[in-house]
Amino acid sequence: MPIDANAEIEVTAFEWVPEFARGLVRDMRPRWACEELGMAYRERLIPVRDKPADFLAQQPWGQVPVLRDGEVTVFESGAILLHLAARGDGLLPSEPQQRADAVSWLFASLNSVEPLLMEYVRVVLFNADEDWARLRRPGLEAAISQRLEPVARHLQDREWLAGPFSVADVAMVTILRILRSGDLATGVPELAAYLERGQARPAFKRALADQLAAFDAHQPVTEGA
Amino acid sequence: MPIDANAEIEVTAFEWVPEFARGLVRDMRPRWACEELGMAYRERLIPVRDKPADFLAQQPWGQVPVLRDGEVTVFESGAILLHLAARGDGLLPSEPQQRADAVSWLFASLNSVEPLLMEYVRVVLFNADEDWARLRRPGLEAAISQRLEPVARHLQDREWLAGPFSVADVAMVTILRILRSGDLATGVPELAAYLERGQARPAFKRALADQLAAFDAHQPVTEGA
Repeated sequence: MPIDANAEIEVTAFEWVPEFARGLVRDMRPRWACEELGMAYRERLIPVRDKPADFLAQQPWGQVPVLRDGEVTVFESGAILLHLAARGDGLLPSEPQQRADAVSWLFASLNSVEPLLMEYVRVVLFNADEDWARLRRPGLEAAISQRLEPVARHLQDREWLAGPFSVADVAMVTILRILRSGDLATGVPELAAYLERGQARPAFKRALADQLAAFDAHQPVTEGA
Repeated sequence: MPIDANAEIEVTAFEWVPEFARGLVRDMRPRWACEELGMAYRERLIPVRDKPADFLAQQPWGQVPVLRDGEVTVFESGAILLHLAARGDGLLPSEPQQRADAVSWLFASLNSVEPLLMEYVRVVLFNADEDWARLRRPGLEAAISQRLEPVARHLQDREWLAGPFSVADVAMVTILRILRSGDLATGVPELAAYLERGQARPAFKRALADQLAAFDAHQPVTEGA
């Protein structure tokens, strides 16, 4: 099991989050990558409120994950995935075009797909009671479907985004999972099958179990308090 | 001048865009990086409508820029910036923590800053006439100010995001320029000074002039038609 209290790599994650965020917090990305690479890491679990000052100095917005690798600190899940891929072997293809595709699709998942999905989370969850959110929802759903269409088309004849499984898939699968409560992704056959393939990987399952185990171990006395 | 019809590197850009987008289209990022690196590139200028089929095969959403480097195609401006930085010398520091900071801030600019700014463009420009956009604007402006605050704080005692000028600054400066019509960025002294420093670089000025020169050369007979 990659979790090892003596590992050189440290992943910072939240010790507990509410139900809606479980399995979606972005430390899923380095956890999954470490599992794929068989790379040991230690967890640093912090509270989602009252974050430690030294953590806020490591991450401008107090977001997780943050990675420590010896003396070096890396933040933003995309940067962390590239760091892990360069340190290990197996998440970035060596063939030049496949490698370029993996990095291109990694950025695409984070800059061309995730932003609309985070807007969707605000519309259907955080700001769901506000008038603008109700009015915005239909147009946003249409925009998301349109944005996902080229991803589905690309996956029509491919198992993974860049040929072999890569950091791009770690990012894209964890991003598409944001839509798990609706059918914007799972209603598209290519994306449903892709999500199933990703989530069936043993490394994904171990990463998910480890994120959830931390939450179980840090259950507040009164949930939602 | 880096633009050279015989260069091995090709940057695809739009031949013409309406006024509001001039100087903001994302091919500014590889143009600026090539200028900083003194790396020759050739332009491929395509129409913003009726894009060529071979271009749509290179870029899932038909966005610019796309980079060709010999036989290899790279898309997404973040992936292109990393490709150029690896090919040249001077846009990624060699000191390990500075290098990690440059990559972390590159992703931060694209995944933690640009998404709210693109939402802002929809609210104040593309969807400005819709009720949801009017209702959303005050909350979104507050969210943007809050998101930019840690960036300003980080720049209080730094000239550039990662120590020396890097790909992170190419991305962040071109992203903050999205807010040029208001004072969400320029009203914050640290960000105003940072934007001024970035835009004062000769390489930035040449990149901007070259993007605008293409638009001037492809002016439609009736603008806005």
